[in-house]
Amino acid sequence: MPKKNAFYAQSGGVTAVINASAAGVIETAREHRSQIGKVYAGRNGIIGALREDLIDTSKESKAAIRQLVSTPSGAFGSCRHKLQSLEQNPAEYQRLIEVFKAHNIGYFFYNGGGDSADTCLKVSQLSQAMGYPLQAIHIPKTIDNDLPLTDNCPGFGSVAKYIAISTREAALDVASMCETSTKVFILEVMGRHAGWIAAAAGLAGEREGDAPHIILFPEIAFDQKKFLAKVKRCVKKHGYCVIVASEGAHYKDGTLLAGSSQTDAFGHHQLGGLAPTLATMVKTELGFKYHWAVADYLQRSARHIASTTDVEQAYAVGAAAVKFALQGKNAIMATIIRGKGKRYSWSIGEASLEKVANREKMMPRNFITRDGFAITEQAREYLQPLIRGEAYPDYSKGLPKYVRLKNVAVPRKLKAGFDI
Amino acid sequence: MPKKNAFYAQSGGVTAVINASAAGVIETAREHRSQIGKVYAGRNGIIGALREDLIDTSKESKAAIRQLVSTPSGAFGSCRHKLQSLEQNPAEYQRLIEVFKAHNIGYFFYNGGGDSADTCLKVSQLSQAMGYPLQAIHIPKTIDNDLPLTDNCPGFGSVAKYIAISTREAALDVASMCETSTKVFILEVMGRHAGWIAAAAGLAGEREGDAPHIILFPEIAFDQKKFLAKVKRCVKKHGYCVIVASEGAHYKDGTLLAGSSQTDAFGHHQLGGLAPTLATMVKTELGFKYHWAVADYLQRSARHIASTTDVEQAYAVGAAAVKFALQGKNAIMATIIRGKGKRYSWSIGEASLEKVANREKMMPRNFITRDGFAITEQAREYLQPLIRGEAYPDYSKGLPKYVRLKNVAVPRKLKAGFDI
Repeated sequence: MPKKNAFYAQSGGVTAVINASAAGVIETAREHRSQIGKVYAGRNGIIGALREDLIDTSKESKAAIRQLVSTPSGAFGSCRHKLQSLEQNPAEYQRLIEVFKAHNIGYFFYNGGGDSADTCLKVSQLSQAMGYPLQAIHIPKTIDNDLPLTDNCPGFGSVAKYIAISTREAALDVASMCETSTKVFILEVMGRHAGWIAAAAGLAGEREGDAPHIILFPEIAFDQKKFLAKVKRCVKKHGYCVIVASEGAHYKDGTLLAGSSQTDAFGHHQLGGLAPTLATMVKTELGFKYHWAVADYLQRSARHIASTTDVEQAYAVGAAAVKFALQGKNAIMATIIRGKGKRYSWSIGEASLEKVANREKMMPRNFITRDGFAITEQAREYLQPLIRGEAYPDYSKGLPKYVRLKNVAVPRKLKAGFDI
Repeated sequence: MPKKNAFYAQSGGVTAVINASAAGVIETAREHRSQIGKVYAGRNGIIGALREDLIDTSKESKAAIRQLVSTPSGAFGSCRHKLQSLEQNPAEYQRLIEVFKAHNIGYFFYNGGGDSADTCLKVSQLSQAMGYPLQAIHIPKTIDNDLPLTDNCPGFGSVAKYIAISTREAALDVASMCETSTKVFILEVMGRHAGWIAAAAGLAGEREGDAPHIILFPEIAFDQKKFLAKVKRCVKKHGYCVIVASEGAHYKDGTLLAGSSQTDAFGHHQLGGLAPTLATMVKTELGFKYHWAVADYLQRSARHIASTTDVEQAYAVGAAAVKFALQGKNAIMATIIRGKGKRYSWSIGEASLEKVANREKMMPRNFITRDGFAITEQAREYLQPLIRGEAYPDYSKGLPKYVRLKNVAVPRKLKAGFDI
């Protein structure tokens, strides 16, 4: 039986450590050359497979693959292409199988969040129905930390660390200027449905009165009156107020705070943005001088201050996926299991994709204080180990050395013409 | 003759390394105990002197002062209080002298930007006129890098490094997603009058086609047509476009891009913000999907990735100020002199405050490319050494250990009642 090749693709929003998972896959596959052929990566994710646009990772040097461990974002490109359901668009799935067949691919490693887990499962099921069985293994990745059945998600720990550090630093700035200048500082962070990232900001504070003074979670409906009263009390007591807000913060009726309905002179929808909306509210109602920051992509690409725990786990789930495949496993996701001891430890486990797909893990209510504006001790205990360690990249001339792969295309074997 | 005490104050916007200058002052003064008494710091800057609210730095341990080197923001507090002219408000200056006299202060170390240099000069002049001579030495500090007569300003190098790194990282993110998602990314950075910080983003790119693709400087009038044409070309050629914009970017008539004149339903001025304004423009005119980030205080407090050059220079100007004072010098600013060799070197010099006050150093035109959207080789050569080295702080539990001083007040000697 000829050795099967492997397909690897990055899916959805990239992270500071998704390339570490890629390194885990590729290095582990290279260690098992007798069982696995080449690792082909999808250029721009799954659409690379649909377009038969594959990257031959065997053309990359050992050193280049190693450098992936310390390079943020998607080295092969990622995409937001969500495969439709099998019923709606069977052609897409059939095309995938056709491409995999043409390139003798027997292993499908999909590195993404919840939607990709679902795709991964369907690919596995369809491949069997079509008589070209593939072993489909999902490698978890999401800064949103919302995948079920894994203690945490690779990508999250580094964003969490970046946001906690940035909050601590900006808070020191505001504290030192508040006597005559800015009194309220707002940092907008990612997290549409779950408040994990905003929660991580809570780690910045250690003592009573430390920033952040207010965290706005998507899990808690925004109450303007309560919020403004808290800001006012906080400025009175501490001289300043630091607010960290999830982009998903919303009113009780579900309207996003960021979803301003205002239009400009030309009738164009105005991009209010959450942070400026909160700032206007604070200025208008309380009169305080404010500043605001929007971390946006900076937070999820900040490999310069990635968490060691996160980098190690990202690598491990990639490596584990290959080992699972070699053990003949299929339709599973590699997971991170937290040890039971008092000292933080973790190991790799597995979960059936049937149980992973289409489930979001929200913050438990007991991770948020009763007033809805802060995190509890339980949240701290959960979050703290995930941001541990500074996995610094190498530098050259004051800037991090991030690898650029050659990304050599695999010669096509099929006729062109599949449009996606 | 009894030993004179020293007064030290931080002024204006704080930086990631202003506390390193404070450490330079305090440690050097402690090394010369036979000549200098105590170092008193103004609580919240110069208003601490006006209020006779002084901090006794001798109460801080050696270790705490050392930790200032790696702690961002103003450890004693800073302020935006600008002293009026002598003619307008002589009482303020007289009060300063009175407080200094009461506490036997003979050295005035003022750590700030252009306005503070002016104040420092006036304090020196008035003290002589009032028969209580003070040696006033200015310690340069400004992220804006706009002080004259010094090759660069402490505080700038670390912001420059942070912005260059963040641009490189976010650009990798956009590049890996642009096939199906965000095509234009905008990062708004500080710099109202001079484009030094935006220029530093240019260091992120190394090869033709690398991000940032467009830099908007306050030195170059914004031309919407030219800008949009460049964005369009860039997306066509590279698949994406990364823009770094100075908050001071403005139209030919001086109107700030950020200065939206729109008002909301209640007639309140809407905080457009530069980044969302540019994003709307790009979306409306070109239809591209965008993301934007506003670094705000994150950039000037990012001690976690401070430049070693910057930290060392910040310390050195603080230490030099004390040595200058001990040499009997007065009304000068410590400066940084760049060595002439090909390999970067620097030393400390001095400049007369008469020549420093009220002059802003803008970016030379030959630092900006002819089309106005990028930096030249000259700019690179100037900027590059300033971001060199990673002066990492110590960490505990995944977060940087930043010192909190005790900030013990010096007992008052004057009657209360001076309101500022």
